Amino acid sequence: MPEPGESSQVLSALMENTDRRTFLTRASVLSLAIPAAGAALTACSLSGGAGRADSGQGGEGAGRARQHNSDSRLDSVVLHGENRPATSATGASTQGAPNVAYQRRDPALPPAPTSGRVQLHWHAREAPVRISDDTVIAGWTFEGDVPGPFVHCRVGDTVEFTLTNDVDIPHSMDFHAARIDPKQAFRSVPKGQSVTYTFKPKYAGAFMYHCGTAPVLMHIGSGMFGAIIVSPREPLAPAKDFVLVQNEFYLADAVKGLRAPDYQKMLNMVPDVVCFNGRPNQYVNEPIRVKVGDRVRFWVVSAGPSHPCHFHVVGGQFDTVYLGAPPGSALRGVQTFTVAPGGGMVYELLCDAPGEFPFVNHGFGHGQKGAIGLLVVEA
Amino acid sequence: MPEPGESSQVLSALMENTDRRTFLTRASVLSLAIPAAGAALTACSLSGGAGRADSGQGGEGAGRARQHNSDSRLDSVVLHGENRPATSATGASTQGAPNVAYQRRDPALPPAPTSGRVQLHWHAREAPVRISDDTVIAGWTFEGDVPGPFVHCRVGDTVEFTLTNDVDIPHSMDFHAARIDPKQAFRSVPKGQSVTYTFKPKYAGAFMYHCGTAPVLMHIGSGMFGAIIVSPREPLAPAKDFVLVQNEFYLADAVKGLRAPDYQKMLNMVPDVVCFNGRPNQYVNEPIRVKVGDRVRFWVVSAGPSHPCHFHVVGGQFDTVYLGAPPGSALRGVQTFTVAPGGGMVYELLCDAPGEFPFVNHGFGHGQKGAIGLLVVEA
Amino acid sequence: MPEPGESSQVLSALMENTDRRTFLTRASVLSLAIPAAGAALTACSLSGGAGRADSGQGGEGAGRARQHNSDSRLDSVVLHGENRPATSATGASTQGAPNVAYQRRDPALPPAPTSGRVQLHWHAREAPVRISDDTVIAGWTFEGDVPGPFVHCRVGDTVEFTLTNDVDIPHSMDFHAARIDPKQAFRSVPKGQSVTYTFKPKYAGAFMYHCGTAPVLMHIGSGMFGAIIVSPREPLAPAKDFVLVQNEFYLADAVKGLRAPDYQKMLNMVPDVVCFNGRPNQYVNEPIRVKVGDRVRFWVVSAGPSHPCHFHVVGGQFDTVYLGAPPGSALRGVQTFTVAPGGGMVYELLCDAPGEFPFVNHGFGHGQKGAIGLLVVEA
Repeated sequence: MPEPGESSQVLSALMENTDRRTFLTRASVLSLAIPAAGAALTACSLSGGAGRADSGQGGEGAGRARQHNSDSRLDSVVLHGENRPATSATGASTQGAPNVAYQRRDPALPPAPTSGRVQLHWHAREAPVRISDDTVIAGWTFEGDVPGPFVHCRVGDTVEFTLTNDVDIPHSMDFHAARIDPKQAFRSVPKGQSVTYTFKPKYAGAFMYHCGTAPVLMHIGSGMFGAIIVSPREPLAPAKDFVLVQNEFYLADAVKGLRAPDYQKMLNMVPDVVCFNGRPNQYVNEPIRVKVGDRVRFWVVSAGPSHPCHFHVVGGQFDTVYLGAPPGSALRGVQTFTVAPGGGMVYELLCDAPGEFPFVNHGFGHGQKGAIGLLVVEA
Repeated sequence: MPEPGESSQVLSALMENTDRRTFLTRASVLSLAIPAAGAALTACSLSGGAGRADSGQGGEGAGRARQHNSDSRLDSVVLHGENRPATSATGASTQGAPNVAYQRRDPALPPAPTSGRVQLHWHAREAPVRISDDTVIAGWTFEGDVPGPFVHCRVGDTVEFTLTNDVDIPHSMDFHAARIDPKQAFRSVPKGQSVTYTFKPKYAGAFMYHCGTAPVLMHIGSGMFGAIIVSPREPLAPAKDFVLVQNEFYLADAVKGLRAPDYQKMLNMVPDVVCFNGRPNQYVNEPIRVKVGDRVRFWVVSAGPSHPCHFHVVGGQFDTVYLGAPPGSALRGVQTFTVAPGGGMVYELLCDAPGEFPFVNHGFGHGQKGAIGLLVVEA
Repeated sequence: MPEPGESSQVLSALMENTDRRTFLTRASVLSLAIPAAGAALTACSLSGGAGRADSGQGGEGAGRARQHNSDSRLDSVVLHGENRPATSATGASTQGAPNVAYQRRDPALPPAPTSGRVQLHWHAREAPVRISDDTVIAGWTFEGDVPGPFVHCRVGDTVEFTLTNDVDIPHSMDFHAARIDPKQAFRSVPKGQSVTYTFKPKYAGAFMYHCGTAPVLMHIGSGMFGAIIVSPREPLAPAKDFVLVQNEFYLADAVKGLRAPDYQKMLNMVPDVVCFNGRPNQYVNEPIRVKVGDRVRFWVVSAGPSHPCHFHVVGGQFDTVYLGAPPGSALRGVQTFTVAPGGGMVYELLCDAPGEFPFVNHGFGHGQKGAIGLLVVEA
C-alpha cells in the first residue's frame, strides 16, 4: 500500500519533464489529491459536480473553482484551469501522436488457459491511440491500447494480476469478475509502484474491468477499461465467440493532431464518439466474418463511462440472451436488449443464411456516433 | 439491387422540382452519397459525429463541414448548410402544412389475418403531420403518417412486403420481426423504385420497423418507424390489446407553420417531444377505454431514435411483463420496466376496478414532454 | 374531492403571506390551473415542452410563454417568469435555510408492523433540506425530508394513508405499491385539506411513492418521493436490509444560501447531483456497516425524476437480483443491473470477507455526482 508523503513525491516527479501547460494541470491535480483513508472509488464533491454539470447552457460557473472530497490520497483530480478544460493530455500520451498507426482490434475471444491459471502483469501507460483515420486520442491505458487486453478464463480458474503504474497520475484496477476487498486489491498506486492480487471468478459472464481511481468518470472516460470473459465450467454450445466493449469518447478539439478526453463533456454526457472496441465503425470497414451454420456469441460489455448499449443485430434475432450468469436466466427470441454501463451480457444468434448483418447500439443518437459494425456470414 | 450510376439519376431528378434552398440541401446530400458496397445501415463519420455532438454548449463548430463514410451509394446524408440546420423539410413534407388536420391514432391492435398471409405494399412519402393543435412536423413517413401503420400477424405467417419510394431521398425498410439478409432486403431504394421481400416471423413479440437508410438517426428521427406485432401460435390470455409506439421528436423552430426534424438536436439527444403513437398526450385528451374485468395487454415499442421507455401505469401494477418472446420469460408483479430503444416488450394488467389510470414513461424528463396517456376502466 | 371554485380559494390564500416575487410566481401558476376533469398525473403541453426543451443551446425561446393542458384543476404549473427560472423556492422552503443541520439518513429498513396494519398521516411541507456541507435545497417534501419516510409492510397488510397539504401549491400521493383508482386516491389537494385512502399491497418489492401532481417532473424533482418496501408473506433469507432511493437534483445557483430546484434543468436532464437517500456521498462519509457472514439486501428505488440507477457493488457480485416481485424471477451472478426511473429492484450479496465495498451508480456521469456509498464489512 502507498505510504503517506507519496503525493509530494509524485509532485516532485511531475515538476520534471513537463512544459508549462502540463505542469499547471498537474499542479492543480495534486493540490487537491487530499490524503484520506477510504475506498479507491469515490466521487467529486457536490459543489464540484453541481458547478460543472449545468444543463449545457454554458456561461456562468464554467470557470469556477471546484472542491474534491477524494478519499484516496492518490486519487487523481482533474480540474478546470483558468480558461481550459480538464483533459488527459499528459506526458507520454501526447508524444508522437501524428504518427500513430491505426490498428483494427481483433474481436475474437482468446482461448481460456487449459492450466486453470491466468497470469497478468500489466502496465498503466499514457499513449496516443489512433481510433480512426482522422482522430488520435490522448489515452490513459492498460497496456497501451483502448480498450485494454481481452482476458478469458473459466469459473474457478485462478487469476494472478499485477498492475505497475508507469505514469505520474495514480491508477488502479477493478475487475468486476473478482469478489475481493477493493480497499486493498483495487487501491491506487503511484508511479513506479505495483499492486498484486489474486482472485477466482465465481460466476460466468462478460465482466468489465477498469481503473477505479477517482474520479472514476475521468479514468474510464480516458480509456482505462476492458473486458474479462468468464466461461462456465460446463461449456456453452459451440460457437464463434466475439468480445465487444462499447465505450463513449468525450473529446476536446485537436491540438497538434491530438484530441484529449474532456472531463466537462463527460459530466454533460453527450458523447462525441460511441464505439465497439475503441474504434468507431471499425467493423463496418473491416467486418467480422463467420460461415453459414455458425452460432455467434457476442460477449458485450458496456464500459460507459455513462451510457448503456442497446444491442441489436440488423436482420437477425437473438435466440438466446443471458441476463444472469450463463447459462442461467436465458431469454429467447429477442430483437434488442440493454447492457447497463458497468455491466455485461451475452447474446447468441444462429447464422443459418448468408448475408451482411450490421450490429448496432439501437439508441441511434449513440449508434450513429460509431457504435455500428458488420457481421458477414459467408456461404 | 440498385445499379451504379443511379445516384446521378437521382441527382438529375432532384434538379427538377426544387427551389434553390431545397436544391442546395439535395446537392450537398448527393455530393456525399459515395458509391460503396456494404450494409444499408451505417454511421456518420467520426469527424462528423464528433464535430456535431459537442456538449450542447453551442457556438463554435456548428457550421463546420462534415464528412460521411456512408457505405451505401443511396444513403441519404443530411448535412448542415452554411447557416442552417439539417432538416427533413423537403419537397412534399412542406406542402399544405397549415391545413393538415389532427387525427387521433387508434391504438387498438388490428386483427391478425386468418389466411396466414400478410401482403403489404407501402410507399415512402414526405408529408406534413399534425401532432398537436399547434404543431405540424415535416415528416418522412411510411404511408403518410407517423408512426407507420400497425401490422399484426402470428408466428409462422408469411409477410410479403413491398416498399416503393415516392421521394427524392432514398429510403428502405428494416423489420425487426424478420430474419433476413439486410444487404438485400433492407437496401435503400431511389425515387420511383421498389424493393420486395418475404419473411416468416419466428418469434412472438412487439417488434419495431424503421427505415434503415443512413443516417438511421435522421430517418427514424424524421418519422420512419412503426410496429409489427407478432402473436404466438398458442393464443395468449384473452385481452384488450393495444399498441403503443414511443418516439422522440427533435424539432427546429416553426417556419410557415411547419417544424422540421433537426439533426443537430437528434445528436444532442434532448428531445422536444416524447409521445405514444406520434401525438403528445393524445390519450389524455381522448383516452383508451376498456371495461371492468378486462385484461389489458400493451405491446410497447420504443422507436427512439435514442431513448428507452420506462413504462408504468399509475394506480396499476403489471401482473405480467414478457421480457422475451411471449409467453416466455414472464415477470410477475412489476411497477415499471424499461423498453430499450429499438426494442419491444409486452405488459399485461387486469382491470378489476373502475378508474382512470394514466400510463406514462416514468422517466419524467421524457414523460413530461408528452409520453402520458389515460386508460379509462368503465364500470 | 375538491370542488369547483377551489382554485380561486387557493388564489386568495396565495395573495396573503407572500412577498412580491413569490406572488408573481404563484399568480402565473394559478392563471394556468385550468379546471378540468381527469387524472392527477398530466403533462406540460407540447408547445411548452418543445419550447423549453431545446438542446441546451440556450438563448432564443427561453423566456417564451408556455401553455399547459393540465387536466386537474389543482395541478401546480410552474412557469418561467420574465427573467427567472421556475423554482420551488416558495414559502417555508426558504426560511431558516442557512441554519439547517445536516443529518445522515439511516438506510436501515424499518421493521414491518406485526399487526398487519400501517397507519400513516403525513403532511406535504416546504422545507429547506441540507444535502451536504455546502448545499441547502428548497425542498418540497413529505414530512420535511428528502426522500420522505421509508415505509415497510408485507404483502396483504393494510396501509391506511392520509396526506394533509400544509402549503399553497397543491400536492398528492401516488404509491406504486397500490392498485387503486388514481383519479380519486392520488388526487391533488389544496392547502389545508386532506386525502385519505387504504390499500393492500399485492406484490412484494421496492416500490416508489411520489407526488403525482402535474407537472410531476417538478414535484419529484423538488423532493416529493420515497420508498415503500413490501416484503413477501414467506420471508426471504435472513439479511441486513437497507433501502437506497436514488434521485437527481437540478439546482439553480444559491440565493441567500439556498439552492432551488430548477425546472428548466429538469427538462434538459443533466443533473447537478445524483445521490442515494437525498445526500450526495453520505455513505462514503458515514458508511453502512455490517459483519462478515451477513447477507446484505439492498432495496433500490430509482426515483429519477428522469434517470435509471445502474447499481453495482465494487469488489462484490450479486448472487441474487430479483427482477420481478421477490422471490420471483431471480438472476444469479450479476455485476450490474439497472433500476428504471419509477422502478425498484432488490439486490442481494453475501459478505463473506471483510473489506470496504463501494456501491455505485455505474453510469459514472451520474455516479460521479454523488451516487456512491460505502459498505464496510467488519470482521
